[in-house]
Amino acid sequence: MAASRLYLSAKSAAALDAELMSSGGFSLDQLMELAGLSCAQAVYKSHPPESKRSVLIIAGPGNNGGDGLVAARHLKLFGYNPIVYYPKRPNKDLYNRLVTQLSNLKVSFTDDIDMAITETDQILDAAFGFSFQPPIRDPFVHVIGLLELTKKPVTSVDIPSSWNVDSGPPKTGELGAGFVPDVLVSLTAPKPAAKFFKGTHFLGGRFVSREIAEKWGFSLPDYPGVDQVVELPVDNEKL
Amino acid sequence: MAASRLYLSAKSAAALDAELMSSGGFSLDQLMELAGLSCAQAVYKSHPPESKRSVLIIAGPGNNGGDGLVAARHLKLFGYNPIVYYPKRPNKDLYNRLVTQLSNLKVSFTDDIDMAITETDQILDAAFGFSFQPPIRDPFVHVIGLLELTKKPVTSVDIPSSWNVDSGPPKTGELGAGFVPDVLVSLTAPKPAAKFFKGTHFLGGRFVSREIAEKWGFSLPDYPGVDQVVELPVDNEKL
Repeated sequence: MAASRLYLSAKSAAALDAELMSSGGFSLDQLMELAGLSCAQAVYKSHPPESKRSVLIIAGPGNNGGDGLVAARHLKLFGYNPIVYYPKRPNKDLYNRLVTQLSNLKVSFTDDIDMAITETDQILDAAFGFSFQPPIRDPFVHVIGLLELTKKPVTSVDIPSSWNVDSGPPKTGELGAGFVPDVLVSLTAPKPAAKFFKGTHFLGGRFVSREIAEKWGFSLPDYPGVDQVVELPVDNEKL
Repeated sequence: MAASRLYLSAKSAAALDAELMSSGGFSLDQLMELAGLSCAQAVYKSHPPESKRSVLIIAGPGNNGGDGLVAARHLKLFGYNPIVYYPKRPNKDLYNRLVTQLSNLKVSFTDDIDMAITETDQILDAAFGFSFQPPIRDPFVHVIGLLELTKKPVTSVDIPSSWNVDSGPPKTGELGAGFVPDVLVSLTAPKPAAKFFKGTHFLGGRFVSREIAEKWGFSLPDYPGVDQVVELPVDNEKL
């Protein structure tokens, strides 16, 4: 499996998402629901609520942030105490509705990222996904700096935020160079940056058929039972 | 728990759905995705693919049928061999897209309900939900007759099709009087008809907060872990 694993470049990942939402028949609501549920399940498997009940969700301005908002909702229903940092909110219907859903579940939002990181048991990093392009802008410059310093366990959605989707971690001395999450949830397929990640690695987004995976050139592992995530072996062969 | 269980009437269930999609911030895509996933998980828990791999999904013309189509997609991804009977298809975007998703996963559709019931290992009954109003029209008169006769295990979505949502099974001699599914998946909350059901009973649709449940007067059990369904005890106290 590891020897044949293939990675989906940023360009291909964007094209595959577009295909899923055109000829694939999926709405963004559906894909994001399943992606966010995957992330919440990965958090549960890695850091269950009995040991790490409070979870800070760092939600970025795009679809990665939307995945984080969906995950926050499921985490609340799984028995966690989520708190959401969502500083840049696009005025789009879906995102507004995800915020409404969280407010109705009494999920808290915070503007104080410093205090939130200090107080939380663990972090879900949903700041940037495969469409991330530098430079990082405020307030995320400060956020990435905090993620470099924190000792709290971090689960990253799709790629570790600040990492280049195709080339991996920032160079020494660059912002984010010191940030390595504990857990990574690759959505649909691992991106090339995942080759540089040696922690606990899940694949999520259980909506792709084998035919589509073959067409796009990545392998699809067997998910166990009804799980929405599958743990991937560490891939040491590509480096 | 059983003594205090409350049921959601057809009228209240419709009003709650409307509330979830207005002030609740949910889209039908999101609610149906989670409802359908619940149904697929209930099938998996009751009749895993190792013993009952082929599953016939009977999809009706409304939202209950839509839940069935979503369930069919997840069942395919869970390793089942689903086949879908979907004779009355509303020309609505969401339903068309759900059919496209199934076609892309190579899920088969059939027009031959007699042969399909003969050949399948088990059945998911998603013909009618809480908005069902008699009379039953063709081809579902024939379908309900087949469900009365079959010995194959049947899982019903929300209510057993042909049962009255509020008053329960049809009277002796009426169409559907002989139909009792093995498994029932109540969505959001059990409907009054569930009082007359003594088989394996799941609750699904894990998106309701305790506040909403209290407001609408039904009790919300604890779902285990990340499961999207929770098995309910048989309620003998209400009859």
